[in-house]
Amino acid sequence: MTSPAPTIAEAARRIARGDLTAEALTRLCLDRIAEREPAVQAWQALDAEGALAEARHRDRSPVAGPMHGIPFGVKDIIEVFGLPTTHGTPIFEGYRSPRDAGCVALLREGGAVCFGKTVSTELAHFHPGKTRNPHDPNSTPGGSSSGSAAAVGAGMVPLALGTQTTGSVLRPASFCGVVGYKPSFGEFTRSGVYDCASSFDTLGLMTQGVEDIVLSRAALLRQPVEEFAPPPLGDLRIGFCRSPFWDQAEPTTRTAIEDAAERLRRAGARISDLELPAGFADVLTLHRTVSGYEFARSIAWERTERGAMLSPVLVEGRAGDGLRVTRRDYHAALDRLAEMRREYASLTRGLDVVLTPSARGEALSGLTVTGDPVFNTLWTALYVPALSLPVLQGPRGMPLGLQLVGQFREDAALCSAAETVRRALS
Amino acid sequence: MTSPAPTIAEAARRIARGDLTAEALTRLCLDRIAEREPAVQAWQALDAEGALAEARHRDRSPVAGPMHGIPFGVKDIIEVFGLPTTHGTPIFEGYRSPRDAGCVALLREGGAVCFGKTVSTELAHFHPGKTRNPHDPNSTPGGSSSGSAAAVGAGMVPLALGTQTTGSVLRPASFCGVVGYKPSFGEFTRSGVYDCASSFDTLGLMTQGVEDIVLSRAALLRQPVEEFAPPPLGDLRIGFCRSPFWDQAEPTTRTAIEDAAERLRRAGARISDLELPAGFADVLTLHRTVSGYEFARSIAWERTERGAMLSPVLVEGRAGDGLRVTRRDYHAALDRLAEMRREYASLTRGLDVVLTPSARGEALSGLTVTGDPVFNTLWTALYVPALSLPVLQGPRGMPLGLQLVGQFREDAALCSAAETVRRALS
Repeated sequence: MTSPAPTIAEAARRIARGDLTAEALTRLCLDRIAEREPAVQAWQALDAEGALAEARHRDRSPVAGPMHGIPFGVKDIIEVFGLPTTHGTPIFEGYRSPRDAGCVALLREGGAVCFGKTVSTELAHFHPGKTRNPHDPNSTPGGSSSGSAAAVGAGMVPLALGTQTTGSVLRPASFCGVVGYKPSFGEFTRSGVYDCASSFDTLGLMTQGVEDIVLSRAALLRQPVEEFAPPPLGDLRIGFCRSPFWDQAEPTTRTAIEDAAERLRRAGARISDLELPAGFADVLTLHRTVSGYEFARSIAWERTERGAMLSPVLVEGRAGDGLRVTRRDYHAALDRLAEMRREYASLTRGLDVVLTPSARGEALSGLTVTGDPVFNTLWTALYVPALSLPVLQGPRGMPLGLQLVGQFREDAALCSAAETVRRALS
Repeated sequence: MTSPAPTIAEAARRIARGDLTAEALTRLCLDRIAEREPAVQAWQALDAEGALAEARHRDRSPVAGPMHGIPFGVKDIIEVFGLPTTHGTPIFEGYRSPRDAGCVALLREGGAVCFGKTVSTELAHFHPGKTRNPHDPNSTPGGSSSGSAAAVGAGMVPLALGTQTTGSVLRPASFCGVVGYKPSFGEFTRSGVYDCASSFDTLGLMTQGVEDIVLSRAALLRQPVEEFAPPPLGDLRIGFCRSPFWDQAEPTTRTAIEDAAERLRRAGARISDLELPAGFADVLTLHRTVSGYEFARSIAWERTERGAMLSPVLVEGRAGDGLRVTRRDYHAALDRLAEMRREYASLTRGLDVVLTPSARGEALSGLTVTGDPVFNTLWTALYVPALSLPVLQGPRGMPLGLQLVGQFREDAALCSAAETVRRALS
């Protein structure tokens, strides 16, 4: 029986004290992977030798910061030098990346140790990979960052990189019982990350703890570590947003979220209802218009030259729909979304954090679909930072996330607030 | 003695009529390349066999649109399936692209024929490649889209793809005597294009004619061809913008532009002076802040793992500067630029097109520097479409561009207006 990976914060403290080496932490994680991988199938390409070599190299260098020696996995639509990048499809068989994506190199520059590639769905869309939910091998891990969520959820690594264009970080994080974080739009470099829909594509993180997000952010931003100071619960102004999609949440999810809000209220939180204007329900159509238009053009080569190797729902459905969007409608949708962002900022002025579901419910039983992003699209499209806290449960006892949403570019404040909420609900 | 490539518009008419085959046009261009390439050195990787095979394939298919059979070159920071992509540095030696960039696949989908890769400066920045100006082998072609501008300027291909983050399409177009076009920001997919600074990176085009831009645009947008209807000169409301950088233009450039404005005025154009607020001079600093911050993170791998293979001005200068920018200053610069775009839109309401220099002067003698983008940064940062018309000359008889700037997303109107101006000045 192996131990799960510690959190980044815990590992960093032990490494800084000299109680843990990068190599020992790497071996601990590799042991965990050896035990759990046969059931979970989180990895597309595990580079155990490379990770050990990198860890030993870290151990020969002074500890430069909190990411020193921290193992991480990388969603397989993100380039890692010398490893295969499949983008979740057999189309790219045999291809090996000539460079690290910016985010990978920045984590390494911060001292982190790259373990390899985690499974992505097909071109970060619907068609699932081989990964299973670490809490139940017959349930979906969610998608499209399936392997990243499952690897962290199974305790294989303390950190994994994912991406979110609709709900591809928050939903799998909710299903796999990990912290999922989608930053404010534009926060992290996307260099070397597969381009799906550039108006929404966002690098995201999976970890076990909230402070871990703050530590990882510093490396990814190449900035000093931001203050992580969870405020007293009573100082937080919390908006409870059922969103225009509340009736699509499972009844048990609605109860779980209402109950969490009630517990926070009883613990002294100031919670007000945040009603969004009726027009905000249009965000699903607007997002589909914009992302479809962009996706059909981003994947022009895959669509025209390798279409037969892709699933029909991707080529005919998703890309086909995108080709039918006119430039005029595309621009109109972009403009309406920009307006919605201004409306949202003005509506939520004075709120520190918004509380809302991460997903309709716990992970679905079965491995053929990865779930519905309906509770993520809005926040992705609004460009605000969002974090899923693994503090709830579904009716089958599977994890269920509570989504907290911050103000645009106030990602550090969101992390601090999320930690306050996590503690109050734990 | 070979013939230069015809314009896209001319070739398309002949191909549609059956007077020209894709293969014959490809051979004409290959012959031209054979003659001119030894002096011009525009190509990083010419794929003559691939182009001929693609052209023959086009000749076996019905003519689908105006790009059918049109040869094009691709700046070597853009992926083309099966060909090397060097990004203008020896770092990527041996690498071959596993896919086409979206823009390349879209041009092929429209029937165009890919000739291969044109020379880029080092990571699309300062350090020049081997390319020479087609009008004088001892003068710079400009950069960073050096090979694309030179290839079109030498009549080797009717179309080449470039990119502009500061002035990398408009300046080489001006120096090489071709039409250069930087679209409204966000207009074309950047999938498969090297990421320098995502707030400014823009795919651009080099052609011999203005209508060629409209025809290429349709394929790249995968939309119907837009109306190309040059209006009567007297219908155009033209702003003459000396810009805050006027005193950096060479005296002969100032004279040439003033004279062009005067000729247009005498031909019946309504030209008013467009004064920009003094604060607009800050755009150079704001652009450097934002692009430096982003570039240092985009190229994290090259900087940390291959820094010794890059020129010091790039690693220590450009990326080093970018690492010293704080996240707060980065956001402040982004916000100020967004505000400037709103100010500019309101200042120019009612103007169809703005007339301004493309560059400080004609191509510099010598091959060690690629010239100054000071007359391009503003328009790149404002996200407006810009087009350089090869209608002027410098004191050494080298080409000099006249830059025309349109309203955001009114790229088709800019092309029509530019054609009117071109005719009036020819």
